[in-house]
Amino acid sequence: MSDDKRVYLFDTTLRDGAQTQGVDFSVGDKMAIAQALDKLKVDYVEGGWPGANPTDDAFFNAPPELKHATFTAFGMTRRPGRSAANDPGLTALIQAKAPAVCMVGKSWDFQVDVALGIPRNENIDMIAESVLHAKERKSEVMLDAEHFFDGYKANPQYALDCILAAYKNGARWVVLCDTNGGTLPHEIERIVGEVVNHVPGSHLGIHCHNDTENAVANSLAGIRAGIRQVQGTLNGLGERCGNANLISLIPSLMLKTDFKLGISDADLAQLTHISRLLDERLNRAPNRGAAYVGDSAFAHKGGLHVSAVEKDPRTYEHIEPSLVGNRRHIVVSDQSGRANIMARFREIGLAIDAHDPKVATLVEQVKAREFDGYAYDGAEASFELLARRALGHVPDFFRLSRFRVMDERRWNARNELVTESEATVTVDVHGNETMTVATGNGPVNALDTALRKALVPLYPVLDDMRLVDFKVRILTPQDGTEAITRVMIESADASGERWTTVGVSGNIIDASYEALNDAITWKLLKASSN
Amino acid sequence: MSDDKRVYLFDTTLRDGAQTQGVDFSVGDKMAIAQALDKLKVDYVEGGWPGANPTDDAFFNAPPELKHATFTAFGMTRRPGRSAANDPGLTALIQAKAPAVCMVGKSWDFQVDVALGIPRNENIDMIAESVLHAKERKSEVMLDAEHFFDGYKANPQYALDCILAAYKNGARWVVLCDTNGGTLPHEIERIVGEVVNHVPGSHLGIHCHNDTENAVANSLAGIRAGIRQVQGTLNGLGERCGNANLISLIPSLMLKTDFKLGISDADLAQLTHISRLLDERLNRAPNRGAAYVGDSAFAHKGGLHVSAVEKDPRTYEHIEPSLVGNRRHIVVSDQSGRANIMARFREIGLAIDAHDPKVATLVEQVKAREFDGYAYDGAEASFELLARRALGHVPDFFRLSRFRVMDERRWNARNELVTESEATVTVDVHGNETMTVATGNGPVNALDTALRKALVPLYPVLDDMRLVDFKVRILTPQDGTEAITRVMIESADASGERWTTVGVSGNIIDASYEALNDAITWKLLKASSN
Repeated sequence: MSDDKRVYLFDTTLRDGAQTQGVDFSVGDKMAIAQALDKLKVDYVEGGWPGANPTDDAFFNAPPELKHATFTAFGMTRRPGRSAANDPGLTALIQAKAPAVCMVGKSWDFQVDVALGIPRNENIDMIAESVLHAKERKSEVMLDAEHFFDGYKANPQYALDCILAAYKNGARWVVLCDTNGGTLPHEIERIVGEVVNHVPGSHLGIHCHNDTENAVANSLAGIRAGIRQVQGTLNGLGERCGNANLISLIPSLMLKTDFKLGISDADLAQLTHISRLLDERLNRAPNRGAAYVGDSAFAHKGGLHVSAVEKDPRTYEHIEPSLVGNRRHIVVSDQSGRANIMARFREIGLAIDAHDPKVATLVEQVKAREFDGYAYDGAEASFELLARRALGHVPDFFRLSRFRVMDERRWNARNELVTESEATVTVDVHGNETMTVATGNGPVNALDTALRKALVPLYPVLDDMRLVDFKVRILTPQDGTEAITRVMIESADASGERWTTVGVSGNIIDASYEALNDAITWKLLKASSN
Repeated sequence: MSDDKRVYLFDTTLRDGAQTQGVDFSVGDKMAIAQALDKLKVDYVEGGWPGANPTDDAFFNAPPELKHATFTAFGMTRRPGRSAANDPGLTALIQAKAPAVCMVGKSWDFQVDVALGIPRNENIDMIAESVLHAKERKSEVMLDAEHFFDGYKANPQYALDCILAAYKNGARWVVLCDTNGGTLPHEIERIVGEVVNHVPGSHLGIHCHNDTENAVANSLAGIRAGIRQVQGTLNGLGERCGNANLISLIPSLMLKTDFKLGISDADLAQLTHISRLLDERLNRAPNRGAAYVGDSAFAHKGGLHVSAVEKDPRTYEHIEPSLVGNRRHIVVSDQSGRANIMARFREIGLAIDAHDPKVATLVEQVKAREFDGYAYDGAEASFELLARRALGHVPDFFRLSRFRVMDERRWNARNELVTESEATVTVDVHGNETMTVATGNGPVNALDTALRKALVPLYPVLDDMRLVDFKVRILTPQDGTEAITRVMIESADASGERWTTVGVSGNIIDASYEALNDAITWKLLKASSN
């Protein structure tokens, strides 16, 4: 591998991506996403801005243990009129539990004049002193040169002086930011071509925004002009129109250029999974048309294209979809179904001959259910139950006779509006009916509580089981409150086992019951086979 | 205007855009979109493929009357082994009521060998003879050179021979297609740079797909290399990952380069409207993050950004939003301070002095509610109600006395498990209590139906209001079914107005009621102030 072609990936999903309208990461979300990024083998994971909000404080107090990526904290250079050592923001940044720091500083004279209102040389001193101060205390220091491209267009010498102040004082990377996202690819190419005469490309990064729909192309233009660190986010998350989308950049760089990343072919095959994992965390519907990983990215709608693709997929596909963990969708004769399902059987330890007629039945069943809105990619326990039921392996542990859930909102005696939920459940276990009633914090909680009350005395193994995650997705939002709803429930037990189940219905209570029912059944099945 | 900078826009929303998964245009849709494109002053509107389906047949039988754009029909070159005059497809294309035709022909040797299975020179004859035949019968003929870039990479001479066959026989435009969408911008630049030595750029078009998220950049690269016709779709509609997005290309060309379009500044100011009109026609939620026209494209969330934008919008905006008919949007979020809230007040037309003590109270209220899980950055109507309530501007249109919702799952007489939801609602309107009952497809739908049943007779203005989106987010998933739930509801009315409201509670039914209540109240408030 020729070293000068190595491009470093810097992920800012957890910092700049957190600026997306409607996105609100919890500490748990940040932890899960950081681990996924590390598994993908990006080079840097920027965790957030310590000191900016309670979530980021909590995350940096107990940071994720990363095997591959360098965990990075974001912050500002020192304020005007303070020494670097006496700046509380800079001190908080340096104390953050992260080996690397990325500090934002201005590089556009107009911003220094208007937004900061300070002398231009004071801004350069702020950058130089902050980098020097941090460099003595952290293993890697980066400068995020805000508005670099607008600054360079307005006053090239001043913009260069700003980044040279960082580079000469030991910044590992100087990141050229197109903060407002308005720069076009040919401008990036020209400007970077000039900048590399002053700061070597092996110390330059690029950070693009998608305000003209060119963030990916701008990043590629910067890399081709010599830059060797690229910043972006998963699925192009980010404020306004988003950041450069790493999910699109990674496969383009790996499959279509001679640049090298720290990612192996096997890691690349996780790309679709990681993209969807983020959407799951954010409870967003994945973008079907997303480049490389979208559900439609390798979909062939019919006629001429389909028959050509059946002759040779290269006729209408720019890459082999499995390289990025995606798959071909052909409306007629979907051959990928069986192989996929056989692979999942092996995963759950089910030995079955591919030619068993039950496999064909199950393939049809899975297709029909996925068409109805079930998502087995995230609900392995429900998939396992479906598969084992098709093979006749699941006993009837219990049978629901009926349930009733009531939610009442009224003014109580103290003139407060209160809402109470109450559920009654009747289950039949081997011919014996049990009826229980319970109240709860909402209808699903009441139902869950009543169901356990009925089953725990008969199956004490359920006693240590608890629900740890509950997700609701509206599948047909245009139908308003009449929409089809998908509920996914994650359960855990005292042994640390976790499993996820799914339910789909036009009625959210029904969908929830279905997922609860699967969760309990799966636990009983595992207990009975031990 | 220097003529060699004039770039012609060719819209294929109604032909290639119609291949989008889930899109199904009616004749009425096509008519409305063609008129909007004409009003925008694109140069060509491709209406569809006459003979391919009944919708396109009907549309071409009674074509739209366009003032500016040239209406174009799409079809294929003649088939192998037929003369152009005796080819039924080509005859249908020429008979279509459109002055211009665009014919697709292959230009990749591999496609000719594998997909067509004919001698390579026969493919060239098909192009030459079809163009010649059409040229004598139509005012403009174009060749859509399918897979041109893949073809050129594989066999440059053959790809050139294909397009020269069209150009030399009188094609007004030869359109270079990146059919599989896998070509990167620097490859486009190199290949087009070579092609213009054989066919003048004033006769070349480019047609890009977004499979690497570079369709816009590829189009720009082609234009910079000399091409003068660019094909794309509104909002980047199209099969797989979509076509080049004209909504992004148009303002980049007009505002950031010296190329000229047939569009005036006043036409450009309709861009946001046209983008959303298409989404309305397709009943899709507009992409908030869309370049230039998205609802978030000029949204400012962070406190520092907001105060800089108030000093001078150029600090964080690459263009003035009104140039494309969009607007600045100050987002209310928990990072927001007083500056954000005051800016939001101005946006909703609330005049209040920044030093009014009610402002401080409201800032505290917004922060406390966001801590509880409310998200006002997506729920502008709930924010407006909160603000107007703090200032004493919202009348009590109705008061909930109580509601009760019941969901029952049981085996019916035909031994099927069925679930029924029923809601009773009692509301007090100016001292008169009304009690209604309704069933529904789930508890929230039942509640919504019962509430409207009570209110519509008293407030007929609510009759045209409907729910168009319903989102549920679990805020504390680790609490399982006891979690805090946030519900966001988007409503619309017959005038096309859309507004979003939010509710938060440990009980999903409560949270839904709160969002419903705000949605109805906002509509009544608007109606009462008109």
